[in-house]
Amino acid sequence: MKTYKCYCIDLDGTVYRGKEPINETVQFVHHLQQQGKEPFFVTNNASQTPDQVLSKLSGFGIEAKRSHIMTSAMAAAKYIAYHYPGKDVSMIGERGLHDALLENGVNIVSSSKEVFVMGIDREITYEKLAQACLDIRQGATFISTNSDRAFPNERGLMPGNGAFTALIQNSTGIEPIFIGKPQGHMLEMIRLEHQYEKEDMVMIGDNYDTDIMAGINFGIDTIHVNTGVTSTEEALLKSVRPTGTFETLVECI
Amino acid sequence: MKTYKCYCIDLDGTVYRGKEPINETVQFVHHLQQQGKEPFFVTNNASQTPDQVLSKLSGFGIEAKRSHIMTSAMAAAKYIAYHYPGKDVSMIGERGLHDALLENGVNIVSSSKEVFVMGIDREITYEKLAQACLDIRQGATFISTNSDRAFPNERGLMPGNGAFTALIQNSTGIEPIFIGKPQGHMLEMIRLEHQYEKEDMVMIGDNYDTDIMAGINFGIDTIHVNTGVTSTEEALLKSVRPTGTFETLVECI
Repeated sequence: MKTYKCYCIDLDGTVYRGKEPINETVQFVHHLQQQGKEPFFVTNNASQTPDQVLSKLSGFGIEAKRSHIMTSAMAAAKYIAYHYPGKDVSMIGERGLHDALLENGVNIVSSSKEVFVMGIDREITYEKLAQACLDIRQGATFISTNSDRAFPNERGLMPGNGAFTALIQNSTGIEPIFIGKPQGHMLEMIRLEHQYEKEDMVMIGDNYDTDIMAGINFGIDTIHVNTGVTSTEEALLKSVRPTGTFETLVECI
Repeated sequence: MKTYKCYCIDLDGTVYRGKEPINETVQFVHHLQQQGKEPFFVTNNASQTPDQVLSKLSGFGIEAKRSHIMTSAMAAAKYIAYHYPGKDVSMIGERGLHDALLENGVNIVSSSKEVFVMGIDREITYEKLAQACLDIRQGATFISTNSDRAFPNERGLMPGNGAFTALIQNSTGIEPIFIGKPQGHMLEMIRLEHQYEKEDMVMIGDNYDTDIMAGINFGIDTIHVNTGVTSTEEALLKSVRPTGTFETLVECI
């Protein structure tokens, strides 16, 4: 297999499934680190802070670098700080998004006609959604961390941020800017902050529609692993195939 | 103007705007009642009980009959009692829907794999939406009182039941059965319960896409009034025009 300078690895379905690590991926990460290559971890989950992600990875035997964690919340905060400097920003979301906005110097307000950003919020209320709809109708730019329709937990498939974003889109008739995969914004942030060339980067994940499509949309190589949402068979039937497909990442060592 | 036996009149935008009556409609209703014709009031609003609607109408000088109030909640309850007799039904909604289900002998449960029905709920929580998504993924028939994307209040356009329905539809990938206008279910309930022929019925309203389309979809005459959402100009540009258009209903006396 071709080697890269920058490995961008999805989390859920690639590094772990819920509370269980995928051991072949853990071995692959250790192998990269032994070669002096610190992988990046790229997740659409906007509810967790980088420190919460580090702590979860540590529990699976992976000691990652904080600067190499990229959540859709961090990418959204960086995107807002870059494209809307000095603007008032209202938000729906949990600590991951709130802390990321503060860390990037964004001025958070309860209602704004300038920018509104949405992440998953399991303390959602009618009032929060109503205020967001009013803000967007009055002209606030509508940004959403990711378009994930559902995510698994022990009860089944729970509604994801994409579904709540669809509610606001349906009510206001206004399309959001999505930051997470399958868009390439998170990969672009990594490229800019760490100065890689696109040919040195690879996106690795289990989900064709988010992980692989993010790599394809951004224009870098992609590796599909058969450890989660999309089967290898399905991935190979797509009109644009991943650069490589493997049962697990242990085959890439 | 042709006269009818059964006048079905929309509420918001036709009988009143928010807290203000539309006096020409009040006069028209009095005129009908003087002729011994009790009009029906047909609303997509699923949050209010018939008694709450009666009380609001009374405040505007209209003494309507309880049996002539048709809300999308009542229609949904009757639809479920008719099509899913004896089934367990889980719900999201306010008192209007809850009471209508009980009144129609529906067995309300907290989680059901048989039937789920959704109406506007301004006490919505993540947990309620998550349980609905799980129920629907496990096979519960997905019924929604109406597809209204937004409704006006003093703050602006607030998210309506259609937007919350879109959230569940987006997350589960499953299409709901909508009961309210522009579907014809409420008019069909009136026809069945009160034994009218379609040629004796007319649907009157301000909103082409809901009121007039409900009449057209059900196959009865329609009257558009220029007192709310759709202007007469817009209504006349549609490929299927209303049977009649008037500035206000006082012209129909």
